Amino acid sequence: MCAQSAHTVPTPGNVAQEDAVLSTMQDVPLLISRILTHGSSIHGTSQVITWTGEGAPQRRSYAEIGSRAAQLAHALREDLGVSGDERVATLMWNNAEHVEAYYAIPSMGAVLHTLNLRLPAEQLTWIVNHAADRVVIVNGSLIPLIAPLLPHLKTVEHIVVSGPGDRSPLADTHVQVHEYEELLAGQPVAYDWPELDERSAAAMCYTSGTTGDPKGVVYSHRSIYLHSMQVNMTQSMGLTDQDTSLVVVPQFHVNAWGMPHATFMTGVNMLMPDRFLQPAPLAEMIEGERPTHAAAVPTIWQGLLAELTARPRDVSSLTQVTIGGSACPPSLMEAFDKLGMRVCHAWGMTETSPLGTIARPPAHVVGTDEEFAYRLTQGRFPAGVEARLTGPGGERLPWDGESAGELEVRGPWIAGAYYNGPDAEPLRPADKFSEDGWLKTGDVGTISPDGFLTLTDRAKDVIKSGGEWISSVELENALMAHPDVAEAAVVAVPDDKWGERPLATVVLKEGAAADFATLRAFLQEERKIAKWQLPERWTVVEAVPKTSVGKFDKKVLRRQYAEGALDVTQI
Amino acid sequence: MCAQSAHTVPTPGNVAQEDAVLSTMQDVPLLISRILTHGSSIHGTSQVITWTGEGAPQRRSYAEIGSRAAQLAHALREDLGVSGDERVATLMWNNAEHVEAYYAIPSMGAVLHTLNLRLPAEQLTWIVNHAADRVVIVNGSLIPLIAPLLPHLKTVEHIVVSGPGDRSPLADTHVQVHEYEELLAGQPVAYDWPELDERSAAAMCYTSGTTGDPKGVVYSHRSIYLHSMQVNMTQSMGLTDQDTSLVVVPQFHVNAWGMPHATFMTGVNMLMPDRFLQPAPLAEMIEGERPTHAAAVPTIWQGLLAELTARPRDVSSLTQVTIGGSACPPSLMEAFDKLGMRVCHAWGMTETSPLGTIARPPAHVVGTDEEFAYRLTQGRFPAGVEARLTGPGGERLPWDGESAGELEVRGPWIAGAYYNGPDAEPLRPADKFSEDGWLKTGDVGTISPDGFLTLTDRAKDVIKSGGEWISSVELENALMAHPDVAEAAVVAVPDDKWGERPLATVVLKEGAAADFATLRAFLQEERKIAKWQLPERWTVVEAVPKTSVGKFDKKVLRRQYAEGALDVTQI
Repeated sequence: MCAQSAHTVPTPGNVAQEDAVLSTMQDVPLLISRILTHGSSIHGTSQVITWTGEGAPQRRSYAEIGSRAAQLAHALREDLGVSGDERVATLMWNNAEHVEAYYAIPSMGAVLHTLNLRLPAEQLTWIVNHAADRVVIVNGSLIPLIAPLLPHLKTVEHIVVSGPGDRSPLADTHVQVHEYEELLAGQPVAYDWPELDERSAAAMCYTSGTTGDPKGVVYSHRSIYLHSMQVNMTQSMGLTDQDTSLVVVPQFHVNAWGMPHATFMTGVNMLMPDRFLQPAPLAEMIEGERPTHAAAVPTIWQGLLAELTARPRDVSSLTQVTIGGSACPPSLMEAFDKLGMRVCHAWGMTETSPLGTIARPPAHVVGTDEEFAYRLTQGRFPAGVEARLTGPGGERLPWDGESAGELEVRGPWIAGAYYNGPDAEPLRPADKFSEDGWLKTGDVGTISPDGFLTLTDRAKDVIKSGGEWISSVELENALMAHPDVAEAAVVAVPDDKWGERPLATVVLKEGAAADFATLRAFLQEERKIAKWQLPERWTVVEAVPKTSVGKFDKKVLRRQYAEGALDVTQI
Repeated sequence: MCAQSAHTVPTPGNVAQEDAVLSTMQDVPLLISRILTHGSSIHGTSQVITWTGEGAPQRRSYAEIGSRAAQLAHALREDLGVSGDERVATLMWNNAEHVEAYYAIPSMGAVLHTLNLRLPAEQLTWIVNHAADRVVIVNGSLIPLIAPLLPHLKTVEHIVVSGPGDRSPLADTHVQVHEYEELLAGQPVAYDWPELDERSAAAMCYTSGTTGDPKGVVYSHRSIYLHSMQVNMTQSMGLTDQDTSLVVVPQFHVNAWGMPHATFMTGVNMLMPDRFLQPAPLAEMIEGERPTHAAAVPTIWQGLLAELTARPRDVSSLTQVTIGGSACPPSLMEAFDKLGMRVCHAWGMTETSPLGTIARPPAHVVGTDEEFAYRLTQGRFPAGVEARLTGPGGERLPWDGESAGELEVRGPWIAGAYYNGPDAEPLRPADKFSEDGWLKTGDVGTISPDGFLTLTDRAKDVIKSGGEWISSVELENALMAHPDVAEAAVVAVPDDKWGERPLATVVLKEGAAADFATLRAFLQEERKIAKWQLPERWTVVEAVPKTSVGKFDKKVLRRQYAEGALDVTQI
């Protein structure tokens, strides 16, 4: 495999030359197996520590993970007959066995498919069938979740169970059931990992889109390897073997933000919460195992903050916190700063592996009053992620910190398609991918001249009025600043003249009366909203409809408007 | 170029599958132009600061470097007709214009060939002709060096002169002479960089081997991009835009250890000494520009230390020092530690881009007495560099910290061949590359179980005795510990029974008499050298012959022995 590269390339003005220069570098593919081999040898004493809820946590060295990943690969290949690029799914919490699956499955040439255990049963079933998973590795505690689905999973032949949990719901299935530890026992602790094409599929993860079928993103060995290097750069997470990272973000959620791969490159220890994601056990494991870093979504941190306020613990080890998934409220960032936990904001999505931006303030603001404002942005694009903003007419917008457009990104760890459509070809929906192959993120925001991204809206929530965009989020925040308003949602509704116009949906505080003219004047005079952006259509509702994760469900409002179910006043 | 990847790969046990999984990631090549575009936009305000020797240093922002690199590319293509992968050489100090050449030449698809200005005229001539350089960009101060060569340079058509220096020696040449600034003036400040194959040639650098012709290593865009990411990982150099790096290691020496590329990924400022490499101006620029990091070979640091001892300056900004090129003496490391400059040892060679190891002590020794010993090793292999040790019989040796063998390495930024031999095919000499494509480094040492490399010898200086190796360096150090010995060199000489045996060549201190039996006993009893390793052949010399850079010239000693020119005693 280490044959010298013999690529040449046509370039503008290229002419055939007898003395053409070939690179003399080794052609070594970027493979997950190389990350595993590095971590389990050079960093063999680093540890995956898995919380068990009672008694001592389970400790497993990277050397042991390496041996056990080899055993798992032997079992999958020889006992379960997994070959080629067949899909092996996991329905698991964050734990050492899940890390073993992360390495064994892609390294042997198969494809790791992480299943999101929060999805409704119908979506899980659809996803497993669409990916054609042949084996599912499942934690014992999740048997109640998968057992009822088994009759509907068309391609699954084997279930491998790991960890505690009642096995009896699996008694009557046609699928073969195996015990994880029994499969591994006696297998060789080394595996001659194949030399794969680095662009071949390594892992897949479906997005749970709110509309349409879920869509599969298929990561390559190359994309994961490059993303892991990026995560380890000092201006990204940049951890070392002196760190222990509490990986709260689930392994079924965009590869746990790349942590299980990045850590094996540098020997960072991983503290895995398994199913103990409640604030109290999280506080307990921070106090007990003294991680230096943690990664999770804001909701987790809100809960932990409340827990620490109610029952203070020694969490002084935890000095770095990476927050992503949704925007971190400034109050939360300030509260964590006070606890000595430095929050670093990051942005990404399933399609971006996920690291797309990270908010390390630029050198010239460090230590100044401006620093906090930079930390509240989504962050700066790292080398490897190219970005552009596209306006409502498809025009490119400048990086001036003011022009808002849809963010489009390009790079070697960014998706250019989704997994198989009905014709078994990659899916490239026009609202997701530009003609020249960039990912349309669906996020709307601005980029400063020094490359910091500030997101303001989802593209689908922006109001496209007469060729210009109106930010629904900006109008909502302005409305909610009025003392009579408890909550406000602004959505786009069709307009004959302007294409779309904003509809202001207001929840009044108890005792307040609906005075839309006053609210409109407030927006214009107090909040300095431009006249052409002011809503003409107003309505009062009892509550803004919300999604299961508590976000405004604007689909519902738009449908209610279309059906005439809202009492709308024009002013 | 962003079409989704459609690679599949045969793997052991692979079977044709209708539902084969393709990665859905974008296929974006890793190109130097992407590093340039990132650095000159996201980090546009970072600076290259070039020392001028008098008055203020020259300051140029990364945004300006980006614009000027585009102008240089236009000039090279349109005015000088550089096309395809033609070679453009540089004979330059470390300065902003050299950084512009670093980016313009590979980004346009041509090949940057950095010429080592320390080489003898004949070698420089041979190298320029071998690479078939068509253009040479030269600093004005180096005109006296290149002017006499011009009649012998067969392929050079254009000389581009940058910076101060008398142009008159170029008056009578047949080669076209251009002024760098005149070429750039008026050119467009943007260039539509071509999408190249990332494995195509980007830059080349010849090793000045002590035997045979120089050998060219040709770096690809991919190898440079990956190496740069590695340099930016926290456990490597890991600098950020809060740092300024004093890049003393020359840009003609293995791409200045990758600094000009790594910095543009993260916005690290570069302080460039140009031709002012003497201890006094180096101390002055450290005091004046307050770099946080510096990279150079030990000789530079020895000189700087003497300067700072004689004339103390405020060098408190400089807290990180990367030392490579040859081993850092412990005394030097201790002296720099006392000055608050933390030395980090690294090992590499032209063939390894160069980062092969870096001595960041493992977490468990940080803050303990063991830490210093780890810092004195050559360091640990980063992810991306695979290593193995090969014994005298070709056998693989364990990583036990004791078994010494020749170091062989593999990885995407490691050479697998040299540039064109006589038949215009890549050269793969058997003493440099193993049959399976690994680089034989020619360095002999041990690897600890946690992956730390300790080099003891050059392979050509090891004594191969009866199928075992004897370290010449170990014997020399042991001999030099004796109070009568001023200097000692040990070389291999032919032996009928054992193949090779050590010859001990000793320089006695003034007034000491040659008592070989005593020295031999000292080695065995005081220094615990194994009996079979003790030299039988001894000689006294006035001085150990040295190379131009002050290393023992063991070739000369071996030749003197072979010619019978040494007075050898057998004991």
